[in-house]
Amino acid sequence: MTHPISPLAPARFPDLPAIAGLEAAIGRAGFYKHERPDLLLMRMPEGTRAAGVFTTNAVGSAPTDWCKQALSATRGGARALLVNAGCANSFTGPAGDAACKRALESACAHIGVETREILAASTGVIGVLLDDAKIARAMPDLSLHPVNWFDAASAIMTTDTFPKGSGATCEIDGVTVNIAGIAKGSGMIAPNMATMLAFVFTDAALSAPILKTLLKAESETSFNAITVDGDRSTNDCVLLFATGQAKVPPIADAHDPRLAAFREALSGVLRDLAIQIVRDGEGATKLVRVIVDGAASDASAKIIARTISESPLVKTAIAGEDANWGRIVAAAGRSDQPLKREMLSVRFGDLYAARDGMVSPDYDEAAMSAYMKRDELEITVTVGPGAGRAVMWTCDLTKRYVEINGDYRS
Amino acid sequence: MTHPISPLAPARFPDLPAIAGLEAAIGRAGFYKHERPDLLLMRMPEGTRAAGVFTTNAVGSAPTDWCKQALSATRGGARALLVNAGCANSFTGPAGDAACKRALESACAHIGVETREILAASTGVIGVLLDDAKIARAMPDLSLHPVNWFDAASAIMTTDTFPKGSGATCEIDGVTVNIAGIAKGSGMIAPNMATMLAFVFTDAALSAPILKTLLKAESETSFNAITVDGDRSTNDCVLLFATGQAKVPPIADAHDPRLAAFREALSGVLRDLAIQIVRDGEGATKLVRVIVDGAASDASAKIIARTISESPLVKTAIAGEDANWGRIVAAAGRSDQPLKREMLSVRFGDLYAARDGMVSPDYDEAAMSAYMKRDELEITVTVGPGAGRAVMWTCDLTKRYVEINGDYRS
Repeated sequence: MTHPISPLAPARFPDLPAIAGLEAAIGRAGFYKHERPDLLLMRMPEGTRAAGVFTTNAVGSAPTDWCKQALSATRGGARALLVNAGCANSFTGPAGDAACKRALESACAHIGVETREILAASTGVIGVLLDDAKIARAMPDLSLHPVNWFDAASAIMTTDTFPKGSGATCEIDGVTVNIAGIAKGSGMIAPNMATMLAFVFTDAALSAPILKTLLKAESETSFNAITVDGDRSTNDCVLLFATGQAKVPPIADAHDPRLAAFREALSGVLRDLAIQIVRDGEGATKLVRVIVDGAASDASAKIIARTISESPLVKTAIAGEDANWGRIVAAAGRSDQPLKREMLSVRFGDLYAARDGMVSPDYDEAAMSAYMKRDELEITVTVGPGAGRAVMWTCDLTKRYVEINGDYRS
Repeated sequence: MTHPISPLAPARFPDLPAIAGLEAAIGRAGFYKHERPDLLLMRMPEGTRAAGVFTTNAVGSAPTDWCKQALSATRGGARALLVNAGCANSFTGPAGDAACKRALESACAHIGVETREILAASTGVIGVLLDDAKIARAMPDLSLHPVNWFDAASAIMTTDTFPKGSGATCEIDGVTVNIAGIAKGSGMIAPNMATMLAFVFTDAALSAPILKTLLKAESETSFNAITVDGDRSTNDCVLLFATGQAKVPPIADAHDPRLAAFREALSGVLRDLAIQIVRDGEGATKLVRVIVDGAASDASAKIIARTISESPLVKTAIAGEDANWGRIVAAAGRSDQPLKREMLSVRFGDLYAARDGMVSPDYDEAAMSAYMKRDELEITVTVGPGAGRAVMWTCDLTKRYVEINGDYRS
């Protein structure tokens, strides 16, 4: 099945900064019948620190289990990363764990790194055991070079229609540092695929606990603030590596004000990658920013925003360019969160559809219809007098989504 | 928009038993542009007891607010019921409450019942104020007769493709009693409609607290065990009325063993109506029974069953007749419920797809494909060694669902 490029794709792949000390190799293990790279191997310099956030799906997968255990054993040390597309190695039991380990051993032997220092990610079909022999056979053809980000992002795609990258440059205490990241996927939208992966690199010399704190916090408003179909996958993982080549003064605390610019730059990269994933949502024709404010807390606002963002009725209405605010109100109402019905308002861009618990007195159908024809929409829902606020990105639900996900094996 | 009758519709409307003392009138207020009845008015004899279960959607609606308050004020007394289709009178503020009350007053004046003894239900577009003058104008044409269940069930339909009824006859302590019920809707699947309503009647002389206890308990495994799109509506309501014409010995406790047969019959009627609603799921071509067992508790099993039943990836796979068990496993995994990965199994009918945390060794693609072609499917997911079990009914997610819900206003 071929996938035409998403109408919401960025015009071009961005120029990403080089991360000193980082090397990558692209290869083909043959997990796909057609010719395409499906292996990405990266090597980092000694002293690289790493942190990860992983899917909370209880089924999980061999590579996410591996990463969690490896990061814990090395206290956030890492020298390499092996990613394959085409097989998720999820729900494959102890045999899957063993296959994952053998694949990593073959990669480590090839690039001269200890097995305990490599991290792993797999994406593809769930329930199929990783054929690690294919990976071992591909190794001799893999040669490390400075990273070509476009090629690296392309090698980890499954049914993505465009490679995803984002980067930034900022200063930590007067020292210039770089950030570059790639991602793949779109929720668990791809047929039987699993799915969202992101790898972000910086040359800044930062400790593993600081990386972990920043990654966790900034994932909340980026990767944890997007939804395509609500189907959280078994293999989701975001890894952040710091090669340490840009020598910044020792910083002990993630909340050190000297990290403010870095944190903001990292946040921007993560959010950019996350939104690109929604832009590549299967069948998506609209990118929608859902803002909920006036809630009892930020957490409550996020639950409401997510309920709206995942409602099939809201998403199909958006596909039909219908400003169906009644469905948005109903979705907010079923989120089991505190809300003041008489203060509820719904805005599309600057246009009020509902205000103070009723249809807006200045509701303008023509202006609303014109707004709904845009590719990118913003829906703001005020649910009460509180200070809680959240932003979520979602896409519409089209016939093409059903087609892609229903007709996969036929 | 016309709706072809669901391929899953029952062959015919059932013969329902008469409920002594019950009368009904069908009318047309004109909430629809085309000619169709949109009003159902029912009168019950003095001494009728009633109980209701209502949507937990925080937005709610004027009629559900009315019912809750009326049932509380009368301690479960009721003499009449007014239902309209075409306008949900939800999210209409105090003006909606006043309109609801005026509509009920006009109905009560017409049939000689106190306003505080009538219950109300509305279904249709959210956010539009009920035009109660239309209802008042229709009253003179409404004349009460013994109930024609087919006509009654037809008058409350919105985008339903067939009227839904179910009945039973059983004994309480040697006395024959009857149960008859009607329902409309399909989750919140109808375009901007709101939505699931059911009204069940018995001639048994039972107290309001007993009715309430039975209705609440049996709704759990019927109306609370179905899902089409997860969009719980603002107007959902199930009302149970007991006219008391069949004089049974006084029973004080809902758990009295003399009620066992009645409870079972009631449960059957509620479940039958609930499943008919799924059969009329917008665009549905498959009725799916999802069974989860081995869970930590029944409640946990229900959450897992619901997560599977509402997963767009699972539902689109079923539409495509694809036994995509990896998606079922992933949905179970993201339900945030305790499960033993190494004990997980997935069965389609009697065919194992996954067993003991891996693909089943005897997985037979040809047999599986043949099974998936059926109209009615059963999926059993074992998640561990526990005693928790739940059953949920759902349907597939087809392009037709997107079409109906996306193209509504165009």
